[in-house]
Amino acid sequence: MLPKVKEDTLARLAKVAGQIRGIQKMVEEDKYCIDVLHQVAAARAALDKIGLAVLKGHVATCVTSAVNQGQGQEYIDELEKALAKFL
Amino acid sequence: MLPKVKEDTLARLAKVAGQIRGIQKMVEEDKYCIDVLHQVAAARAALDKIGLAVLKGHVATCVTSAVNQGQGQEYIDELEKALAKFL
Amino acid sequence: MLPKVKEDTLARLAKVAGQIRGIQKMVEEDKYCIDVLHQVAAARAALDKIGLAVLKGHVATCVTSAVNQGQGQEYIDELEKALAKFL
Amino acid sequence: MLPKVKEDTLARLAKVAGQIRGIQKMVEEDKYCIDVLHQVAAARAALDKIGLAVLKGHVATCVTSAVNQGQGQEYIDELEKALAKFL
Repeated sequence: MLPKVKEDTLARLAKVAGQIRGIQKMVEEDKYCIDVLHQVAAARAALDKIGLAVLKGHVATCVTSAVNQGQGQEYIDELEKALAKFL
Repeated sequence: MLPKVKEDTLARLAKVAGQIRGIQKMVEEDKYCIDVLHQVAAARAALDKIGLAVLKGHVATCVTSAVNQGQGQEYIDELEKALAKFL
Repeated sequence: MLPKVKEDTLARLAKVAGQIRGIQKMVEEDKYCIDVLHQVAAARAALDKIGLAVLKGHVATCVTSAVNQGQGQEYIDELEKALAKFL
Repeated sequence: MLPKVKEDTLARLAKVAGQIRGIQKMVEEDKYCIDVLHQVAAARAALDKIGLAVLKGHVATCVTSAVNQGQGQEYIDELEKALAKFL
């Protein structure tokens, strides 16, 4: 992972960790279910963005290197499998 | 939230919090991007299940009460908006 | 399904059918993959909205009736299973 | 698009078109909402698989060519934007 992507991913993950703590607190304090649901959806959307950023960084580095060495296909198969889990 | 749903939701949230910490560690230790992606997808799927459980509990309690008092529509509109954020 | 929901759902489905035909034409004419992808994502989002509208109508009619007759739980379990397929 | 991917994508699209017609018929004949929902979810999942196949083909051809010509970055940005619409 490039230093910029790594730093950005760690910052986003710290934010998601904070969102999860916030949801735990909401549930403990019996907040309204719909408000809890909105926060769960927000944390999920934040994870999607992290996944997308990691994936983009992976294509820009590992997949690109593999393609340059004529070994792209294996990486593309692997990428497809990881993406399938998000859809 | 019913005590059973609350307890179950808190247990699931604690597990997601652990998954997020695991992903942070993987990124800090420069683990392979595709492995990180699989863990992000797993945490996201766990949040989906939490959302579904909270939603089900909400329909079984709040929406059911509202319907019994002839005030279901408002709750159904609210439910739709929360669901739209997951799709 | 209420007449209004039925009419609306059929209109949306006709639109999705048109989107699918459009995508078929794009693929036949070798349009650029990324443009095809954007149209696939648009058709998928349209299906999500149809699902949400059908679900809302279902809660407003069938689930509400069942709750009024003290038989809501079975419908809620069924709803949960259908929703799980969208997440 | 490679001939194999094109043929496969057209076959899958024809199947989705059939699924949409099936859903239209179900709605016209007032079939049970939950059964309609399951079919909408199935058509949506089929579109996801089409998106994934188109995307994989795109990386294996266009993105790979671009990388080989030292112009991968522009394609990667474009890919990210298309993917974001699916998440």
